[in-house]
Amino acid sequence: MVLRGLGRLSTRSTAAVVHRPLGHGAGKFELGTASLTYTSSKGAQGMMDVQHTGVPAEMRGQGVAEKLCEAAFAHAREQSLKILPTCSYVRERFVRANADIVGDIALRSLDAEVPGMQIETAWSGVATVRFTEARRRNPLGVSILGRLRTFLQARQAEWQQLGTPAEDTVAVRCIVFESSGPVFSSGHDLGDMSDKDGAGVRSVLEMCAEVNLLLAAVPQATVAAVAGRCLAAGTQLAASCDLVLAEKSTATFGLPGVHGGGYCHTPSVAVGARVSSPRQALELGLLGDEIGAEEAVRIGLANRAVDSNCWRRTVDSLGGKLAKSFNRNTAEGKRTFYRQVAASTPSESYEIATGSMVDMFLSDEWKAYSASFKSKPT
Amino acid sequence: MVLRGLGRLSTRSTAAVVHRPLGHGAGKFELGTASLTYTSSKGAQGMMDVQHTGVPAEMRGQGVAEKLCEAAFAHAREQSLKILPTCSYVRERFVRANADIVGDIALRSLDAEVPGMQIETAWSGVATVRFTEARRRNPLGVSILGRLRTFLQARQAEWQQLGTPAEDTVAVRCIVFESSGPVFSSGHDLGDMSDKDGAGVRSVLEMCAEVNLLLAAVPQATVAAVAGRCLAAGTQLAASCDLVLAEKSTATFGLPGVHGGGYCHTPSVAVGARVSSPRQALELGLLGDEIGAEEAVRIGLANRAVDSNCWRRTVDSLGGKLAKSFNRNTAEGKRTFYRQVAASTPSESYEIATGSMVDMFLSDEWKAYSASFKSKPT
Amino acid sequence: MVLRGLGRLSTRSTAAVVHRPLGHGAGKFELGTASLTYTSSKGAQGMMDVQHTGVPAEMRGQGVAEKLCEAAFAHAREQSLKILPTCSYVRERFVRANADIVGDIALRSLDAEVPGMQIETAWSGVATVRFTEARRRNPLGVSILGRLRTFLQARQAEWQQLGTPAEDTVAVRCIVFESSGPVFSSGHDLGDMSDKDGAGVRSVLEMCAEVNLLLAAVPQATVAAVAGRCLAAGTQLAASCDLVLAEKSTATFGLPGVHGGGYCHTPSVAVGARVSSPRQALELGLLGDEIGAEEAVRIGLANRAVDSNCWRRTVDSLGGKLAKSFNRNTAEGKRTFYRQVAASTPSESYEIATGSMVDMFLSDEWKAYSASFKSKPT
Repeated sequence: MVLRGLGRLSTRSTAAVVHRPLGHGAGKFELGTASLTYTSSKGAQGMMDVQHTGVPAEMRGQGVAEKLCEAAFAHAREQSLKILPTCSYVRERFVRANADIVGDIALRSLDAEVPGMQIETAWSGVATVRFTEARRRNPLGVSILGRLRTFLQARQAEWQQLGTPAEDTVAVRCIVFESSGPVFSSGHDLGDMSDKDGAGVRSVLEMCAEVNLLLAAVPQATVAAVAGRCLAAGTQLAASCDLVLAEKSTATFGLPGVHGGGYCHTPSVAVGARVSSPRQALELGLLGDEIGAEEAVRIGLANRAVDSNCWRRTVDSLGGKLAKSFNRNTAEGKRTFYRQVAASTPSESYEIATGSMVDMFLSDEWKAYSASFKSKPT
Repeated sequence: MVLRGLGRLSTRSTAAVVHRPLGHGAGKFELGTASLTYTSSKGAQGMMDVQHTGVPAEMRGQGVAEKLCEAAFAHAREQSLKILPTCSYVRERFVRANADIVGDIALRSLDAEVPGMQIETAWSGVATVRFTEARRRNPLGVSILGRLRTFLQARQAEWQQLGTPAEDTVAVRCIVFESSGPVFSSGHDLGDMSDKDGAGVRSVLEMCAEVNLLLAAVPQATVAAVAGRCLAAGTQLAASCDLVLAEKSTATFGLPGVHGGGYCHTPSVAVGARVSSPRQALELGLLGDEIGAEEAVRIGLANRAVDSNCWRRTVDSLGGKLAKSFNRNTAEGKRTFYRQVAASTPSESYEIATGSMVDMFLSDEWKAYSASFKSKPT
Repeated sequence: MVLRGLGRLSTRSTAAVVHRPLGHGAGKFELGTASLTYTSSKGAQGMMDVQHTGVPAEMRGQGVAEKLCEAAFAHAREQSLKILPTCSYVRERFVRANADIVGDIALRSLDAEVPGMQIETAWSGVATVRFTEARRRNPLGVSILGRLRTFLQARQAEWQQLGTPAEDTVAVRCIVFESSGPVFSSGHDLGDMSDKDGAGVRSVLEMCAEVNLLLAAVPQATVAAVAGRCLAAGTQLAASCDLVLAEKSTATFGLPGVHGGGYCHTPSVAVGARVSSPRQALELGLLGDEIGAEEAVRIGLANRAVDSNCWRRTVDSLGGKLAKSFNRNTAEGKRTFYRQVAASTPSESYEIATGSMVDMFLSDEWKAYSASFKSKPT
């Protein structure tokens, strides 16, 4: 049993804690008469809802609740479950005190407002947007697009309202898209289109464009972690993210509209803006063939092709790293980058970037760093 | 003998047909007293001109003419010849009825208006522009540029005049550039320049620029199938095509102007617009060295480096696929792509593409597809 | 002992010349009572300062001075030293007469105006800008940026003032950046920033931006020959050069600002303008990880990854080739390229390039070439 990230905690013994499964995913951890109760669910991403931690008055002050929590987290990690800390002790005390070592599996919130998508925000700041309708090939239906739009707009608004933002108050510090099943996403839900007139189709497409533009506009880094086939508006969504990881043995990217006598016009916007030559976007659009992970890296559609055996670790580690380093300077880094790279002349790009760079050099974060390492590189 | 694409036809016996070569490339196929006469030529692309099919009155109504045609087409395929159906029976009856299986080698027209270039339009819709002056390194002389310009302008005008175009009436559905000999094209014919003043040189260059811009402007996909060395304005022409295939063992691309104390300024426009980094275009221009097929793929100058042993098959299959899928949506796909990718902001790109995408979803082609496969990807 | 490039000279015997080291890097070459005296220094780039050549009256007219020089140049080549011809005979007579074979190691000038950087201009026209503060990781301090700016501005002004420039009068014909030690350059000198207010920081950044823009604006090709780690403003400088060579076993490129809680905004301008997809620039900026030479080639940040064992030869040969071919057409080639590639439409790009191409075809250089090779490619 590997207690990844639990090094410090596991040095204290949790041996006395007994795990008692109760069937139907429910269970208890017990230490004498103290107990922690949970319910759990399997699926695309298993979840362990810790509902209550109860310690009798005579056992208090001996770290009993902490021991129960340690056992529960160790169990969750072993079973690849995330923990939803419904119990206020776990949420308000245990996780806060141990955020650096349990923050990646303890969820701050779980959003399942619309069918087919869940947004899990970990204590670490990684918000995982997960498409959960594998059997229907994870279509991006209007309800999903709508929820994504409000989620991303909220990130943007929160940042703007904070003025000079106190980024420690921001719960979402990085956004990762994941999916399960053989198809990452098949794109639009054709059912959304089939009964609509021009205005109706347009409103879906405009919502979709907004979502894709927001992926570049939000202050957090956006990452598509693509395992499985990524098609049409699915490829568009991935292409619009700042960074793309592609699982080597399963990820493919395609614009298959031509196979139905059509053409993937709007997905070609996101693809065309990212691939290294326009002819690669035309190839995808005109032929409709899918390309694999390594080909996607070659043409600039993905950053990295990742081996299966380190996929999970790589996705988690990238998200964790981005969430950890997120601050006003990285947020400004992303914003400035997209602004300057779109400027009409190199001089104009430098004007834009120079303003941000001056602020950066004067920022508290940089001054603190600079004070301690004066001889290190910029 | 492989009767590629003749599966259905070959199930009927053509055994009784006798092939009688008559010397100097002429010949006959005979079935009793019925006969089909042809003349043929070898060379870069061998051609078999079927001139007459004669069936005596008493043999009519038994499929005799069809059997003669089947034998002739089987022979052409075996010898890698294209067929020019001068005989009206072959053209109006046999090819029309069997377009799906003989359309790739039956020519609809053969244009040899200017020396050094032929335009063969197959029944399938693939128009092959072939440079035929291998010994002179296939220069792009003014007469060739002029003919290319009128050919491409005609494609554009035809499409615009059709209003909502009935693409079934369009004979040219895909344009492929081919060449033979060790040099695909050496670029401008220096003889065109040497005796001209500034205005004269300018008019050649402006015609050349027009041709290159038309390669992106015509509704059909344009493909450069580069085997051999591609130089200066030759590299420009290839770079300007939507798609580029490069034969692995022979294709090279270069901007050699610097070797003559000059510089390939105008070829650098097409190259600069396609390579993945400006420094790759500067390397080609400032050093004048040629790069191979795989290097060309790496920097975005070509889509695919293709092995010699599947070169012919790959070129034919790509052309055939593009011709087959050509319709108003793919034509709009290409047009929209170049428009939106040149827009100043991502929002503007989406505005452009959204209009086309609405039309696509409402097009008859897509509605027919969508009706039958409602659960498939966009 | 290989006398690289000295083929012609070495056919005459220098056997009678005696080399007499005098300690502390000084020495003499003697032929009878005639002698050549020098001082030499080792270091990043060893230098041999030839101070005097003395031939007694009775020995004149027998090529004695030439023999002494040949021996000295052979020695310099063997020891990988450059020669500073302080002695007027060497400078005005020997080097001029043998520029084609000694021009790469004979310096026309050596500029060490500011600490941490030397500009060595070889007789061949290659100006090597060398960062010489390896122990401090070659920071780009304000004095270095200032000197680079005046050096590059002088190149630009010289070219403009020449009107229709007589490029034979231009001493600098190609600019190569080199460095020594494990870090090519760590970027800005943080000491320049730490005690400054916004206006002060801005003035350093604006100077830096000017230097980077001048690398594209000067008529000479600019080359970064990166061995070792290239970081932040160091990566910016390399990215801004027309061409980049990266030594395979040591070169890395990185934007490490994020590691200090900051962000490399201005370096991202140069990187963003050169990499093949914006996501590669964001990856470098948001993660701060360094990438190697081959990865840099993959994403367009470098032209070539070069093996250690041919690094020196490749850098020298690239510089030599560019210096040799430098003329009004290549200078215009670079200028036209950056102008046309930044134009808003392909037609506009062609308008810009067509003007330059007309001038090219009418230039004396091209007419001379064209007259002798009428059948060769453009």
